[in-house]
Amino acid sequence: MLNHRLLPAALVNELKVIFGDRFSSTAVVLDYHGRDESSYPAQPPQAVVFANSTEEVASLVKLCSLHEVPIIPFGAGTSLEGHVLPIHGGISLDLNNMNQVLGVYPEDLIAIVQPAVRRRQLNDELKDTGYFFPVDPGADASIGGMAATRASGTNAVRYGTMRENVLALVVVTAAGEIIKTGTQAKKSSAGYDLTRLFVGSEGTLGIITEITLKIYPQPEDIAAAICSFSTVTDAVKAVMQVIQLGIPVARVELVDALAIQAINRYSKLTLNEQPTLFFEFIGSSHSVKEQAELAQEIVSNHGGHNFEWAAHPEDRARLWHARHNAYFACLQLQPGCRIINTDVCVPISRLAQCIAQTRQDLDTSWLKATILGHVGDGNYHVLLVIDPDKPDDLVEAERLNSAIVHRALQLGGTCTGEHGVGMHKIDFLVDEHGIGAIEVMRTIKKALDPKNILNPGKILKI
Amino acid sequence: MLNHRLLPAALVNELKVIFGDRFSSTAVVLDYHGRDESSYPAQPPQAVVFANSTEEVASLVKLCSLHEVPIIPFGAGTSLEGHVLPIHGGISLDLNNMNQVLGVYPEDLIAIVQPAVRRRQLNDELKDTGYFFPVDPGADASIGGMAATRASGTNAVRYGTMRENVLALVVVTAAGEIIKTGTQAKKSSAGYDLTRLFVGSEGTLGIITEITLKIYPQPEDIAAAICSFSTVTDAVKAVMQVIQLGIPVARVELVDALAIQAINRYSKLTLNEQPTLFFEFIGSSHSVKEQAELAQEIVSNHGGHNFEWAAHPEDRARLWHARHNAYFACLQLQPGCRIINTDVCVPISRLAQCIAQTRQDLDTSWLKATILGHVGDGNYHVLLVIDPDKPDDLVEAERLNSAIVHRALQLGGTCTGEHGVGMHKIDFLVDEHGIGAIEVMRTIKKALDPKNILNPGKILKI
Repeated sequence: MLNHRLLPAALVNELKVIFGDRFSSTAVVLDYHGRDESSYPAQPPQAVVFANSTEEVASLVKLCSLHEVPIIPFGAGTSLEGHVLPIHGGISLDLNNMNQVLGVYPEDLIAIVQPAVRRRQLNDELKDTGYFFPVDPGADASIGGMAATRASGTNAVRYGTMRENVLALVVVTAAGEIIKTGTQAKKSSAGYDLTRLFVGSEGTLGIITEITLKIYPQPEDIAAAICSFSTVTDAVKAVMQVIQLGIPVARVELVDALAIQAINRYSKLTLNEQPTLFFEFIGSSHSVKEQAELAQEIVSNHGGHNFEWAAHPEDRARLWHARHNAYFACLQLQPGCRIINTDVCVPISRLAQCIAQTRQDLDTSWLKATILGHVGDGNYHVLLVIDPDKPDDLVEAERLNSAIVHRALQLGGTCTGEHGVGMHKIDFLVDEHGIGAIEVMRTIKKALDPKNILNPGKILKI
Repeated sequence: MLNHRLLPAALVNELKVIFGDRFSSTAVVLDYHGRDESSYPAQPPQAVVFANSTEEVASLVKLCSLHEVPIIPFGAGTSLEGHVLPIHGGISLDLNNMNQVLGVYPEDLIAIVQPAVRRRQLNDELKDTGYFFPVDPGADASIGGMAATRASGTNAVRYGTMRENVLALVVVTAAGEIIKTGTQAKKSSAGYDLTRLFVGSEGTLGIITEITLKIYPQPEDIAAAICSFSTVTDAVKAVMQVIQLGIPVARVELVDALAIQAINRYSKLTLNEQPTLFFEFIGSSHSVKEQAELAQEIVSNHGGHNFEWAAHPEDRARLWHARHNAYFACLQLQPGCRIINTDVCVPISRLAQCIAQTRQDLDTSWLKATILGHVGDGNYHVLLVIDPDKPDDLVEAERLNSAIVHRALQLGGTCTGEHGVGMHKIDFLVDEHGIGAIEVMRTIKKALDPKNILNPGKILKI
């Protein structure tokens, strides 16, 4: 295993021949590829290669395999868990030149994209077709990165996650072979589900260079509403009932009182500063009305008040923009702060209990903390506000995160609903799955990447 | 590799100690476990073990691993592709004693079942809860077998396949370790997606002994209808538009004229003997009405006629019962015949072309053949009627199947939408995925089952 030594000269020479000035080791480029949105200190790679094609990725991987040098795929750099940090050195593979929407096939409800296509870019390109891609993690992440971390977000309650919305992939294996997983057929029983194996594998089993996605007709009608509650528990209980009755909400998001304060300040809004649910309903006009009436009734029964509709598209956009910017709003809660973001997901019947106990934990801490969540899926985030200059803050944040994760696991949940494992949840993963299942993962990793060159040190310690 | 030799005496003695009279090698038991619904000749195992628990399965696997003896899981025996045939000898592991619904958790939309629970049994047990399990392959298959083959059926167009509806598994690995894949959380980004890897692995990577399933609220309202067309192509084009517009039909099935004849005779009905679509719409009364009106308009625009509603539950049951019995009805088309059932699935934009060309192929053959299909997913079956005493019939059926598969692959489809690979589609799998992807599957198989004791000779030739 190479560890922070210089790259072999032979490799560098070969890469310069293939990639020319798309091979870089200038300090500013290295520095940019050594960080993401996590609170880990930057760890620059030894070099960065900007690939233009699947074939170029394959060439790079073959050379790196020969020289046993790690490769870390890099897209938008929006990971929250240190996914793109080259902690064992090696080459950061920047895929941002591979940013084309290769094809849109509305008649098959499919779009085919290169890995660096951003979520917003894709939807901009789809706009005039009458279709859209629903998975929306908030950040303007790359589709490749979203596939690699099995991302989801606000729309997952209705449309599912990247697990459900990736139909097929082109992947470069650790040996530099180019393979296709899956077809354009909507379903298949043809052998092992390699697509789902690579989705969520965080660049450790292969490098995703093309993604076939499901797309959906733009809804005929959309309605959004917000609603306040006296307590987070009341809000969560309302959501539980909405889900259990099978009301097909498009989004239902919880934002706690402190986060609403932050949002008001950041987005210059005057929302009622109480625990709040953000709803979105889609469908035909009739169906939207029906869903909304049912949801409103449930919400009222749980003490929801100030139910307010965002009737105009601009009002709706303002609302969701505010929700999406909650992370940045919370960064303003304390000057110069950073945020440690937790990401557990529990069975929805345990959600109210889980969040209430979490709130008790948070109340005993000196750290500011807000709770946000894709509560329709049982997934919530605690944004723990830390001063990067105070080591105790980080220790305290990790203590709280650990308590939150272990509570979620005890309640039948997962340590990460959508952010992935990266470097941050490797130990929690063992607690969640047990040593036996982790050994199966390790066996797969060793078999598919015997030299451990693909994003080493992520998901599993090997 | 053991191949049809007698079992090691030491193994037999140990199994008799553990399983007592649940270890059997009587001829009638062996014979029963050597066949399924495929047209392969029976190949009895050397012995059958009836396991009562996951722990017993683990003990069996440990012993078989020690003695390098194959294990073939056996449930309902409804496979169409030879999945349960012990072609390399060994022990058939009958799981039918493990037939308990372990828990129903409507508040989390989850049920946990043992592998031999049958589809109908599960829905009978769910009936009073107000929830149901939608995946419906027609046969009263076991849930374990359905998970192992990534089964689907008529409801998949709305609810997805076993890929989307299995949340977590308990699996016994080839080393006899018991592992849990997944949690009860609705979504997760926690490491490799072992659940989806075992779903569809046909008993070749591990033995599924417990399944956590998604369940759904029973729909408020249901409506079914049938509608005739002059040509199969018109019918398929109508379905294509229904799907492309995103109308959330619960089922939409194609049955061609000859199959309708067979159904009329078998189920004593008087359906119009033309290509026919069977529709089911579910939801609130409003939504059902809305969907049905839209679908009816589309259908009319494509020359659909005799649109008939099955308003009463009994009428609906009769209709779907008839559709589900189409296979048995077609078995009556020729006395003493067997059926070879194809199973391709293509992107829906290619479906009309694909079926029309297939019909041309069939018209040049002496075999009787009907076309049935879950056409909303692009999946259709050709039921090829053969005389088991005429070897030429089988050769001709396989020739037609091969042509159908290769056409589907050329159109971006898959060789099997829902039946699985078994022994029957091993070569087609290579054509579909390419050697590179097959090598990745083989690497995974070798890593997870190095002695090749788990259902050897299925999915991959090793």
